[in-house]
Amino acid sequence: MSEGLDKLFATIAARKDADPGQSYTAKLLAAGVEKCAKKFGEEATETVIAAISRDKTELAKESADVLYHLAVLWAASGITPEDVYKVLKEREAMSGLEEKTSRKS
Amino acid sequence: MSEGLDKLFATIAARKDADPGQSYTAKLLAAGVEKCAKKFGEEATETVIAAISRDKTELAKESADVLYHLAVLWAASGITPEDVYKVLKEREAMSGLEEKTSRKS
Amino acid sequence: MSEGLDKLFATIAARKDADPGQSYTAKLLAAGVEKCAKKFGEEATETVIAAISRDKTELAKESADVLYHLAVLWAASGITPEDVYKVLKEREAMSGLEEKTSRKS
Amino acid sequence: MSEGLDKLFATIAARKDADPGQSYTAKLLAAGVEKCAKKFGEEATETVIAAISRDKTELAKESADVLYHLAVLWAASGITPEDVYKVLKEREAMSGLEEKTSRKS
Repeated sequence: MSEGLDKLFATIAARKDADPGQSYTAKLLAAGVEKCAKKFGEEATETVIAAISRDKTELAKESADVLYHLAVLWAASGITPEDVYKVLKEREAMSGLEEKTSRKS
Repeated sequence: MSEGLDKLFATIAARKDADPGQSYTAKLLAAGVEKCAKKFGEEATETVIAAISRDKTELAKESADVLYHLAVLWAASGITPEDVYKVLKEREAMSGLEEKTSRKS
Repeated sequence: MSEGLDKLFATIAARKDADPGQSYTAKLLAAGVEKCAKKFGEEATETVIAAISRDKTELAKESADVLYHLAVLWAASGITPEDVYKVLKEREAMSGLEEKTSRKS
Repeated sequence: MSEGLDKLFATIAARKDADPGQSYTAKLLAAGVEKCAKKFGEEATETVIAAISRDKTELAKESADVLYHLAVLWAASGITPEDVYKVLKEREAMSGLEEKTSRKS
């Protein structure tokens, strides 16, 4: 179902060497980390606005933009989804432990 | 590999009815959309800072925080990862078409 | 010296009824609070990027953009610089008290 | 009236060498540009949330926080309000010219 984010990143990474004149992704990556971070920040703000406006359709759209621009930022910065999942897994393990402990007390 | 985001969302959704005193996720969800949007915005800013600082380890950590708080915002707002993937798929289809067209010209 | 912000707000407020086709400010105000908040958020992100990049010239430029778009957001939302200064003054008074107290202890 | 921002900056600059244990401003400045940028970004997000929520009281409060943390970021980065006003004045002059031109056409 959610190969979602991995597939998205693979598509983005594949366009790294595409013609910036024909691919928006290639154009963003060619513009560098600052530009990619700026676009990610913009989409994050729009996600906040959609959420506060209680607009579910808009929130889904802006969230898709956030995920896309976050994945572009990863590609521009030289990290992969796996690097991020690794952090998520470590936290999950930790949080499981914490919950067990708190249940006992 | 990336059941990542789906699994994350499922874990978050499962904690919706947990004791806010024992689960950070339950506490966030109980605090409402504004609080969840605020936390997401904070993590987005920290992601931008990590990227501009060229700190890959920090970028992976902050990205994990962004994904977690984005998924919490979805749960608080009543949307699912599927709603977001649907948007991503529509765009991918569209972008494929655009590229075909541009390759011809 | 810094009638800066007041003058800026007065200029913005004066353009509220200008032709949106001829004034960027009138166009923003006509577009509504969501659009003004979005622009403010974008400039805030760019200010963060300039600061982290240690680019003083860019930081001054982006800060000017932040102040301008913040003042536009006030005009769009029906608040004035005085409303904001009032909060600042109350805090300053409070912070003065706090410091006196802490100096004694 | 609005010595507001200048006075705020002067107060902040004066606390640069205060005891970080007794002054929040001194503590922020001692923590460095990254920390100051992070706080500014947080307050910017809260300002957006207050504006979209149509909460004028909250918008004034969060705007005060934005101005304070922006001025702290200037102090941490080694720029002054004058550097920012200079940019604003140049733009105002430019925008005046643009309007004159557009009035003629």
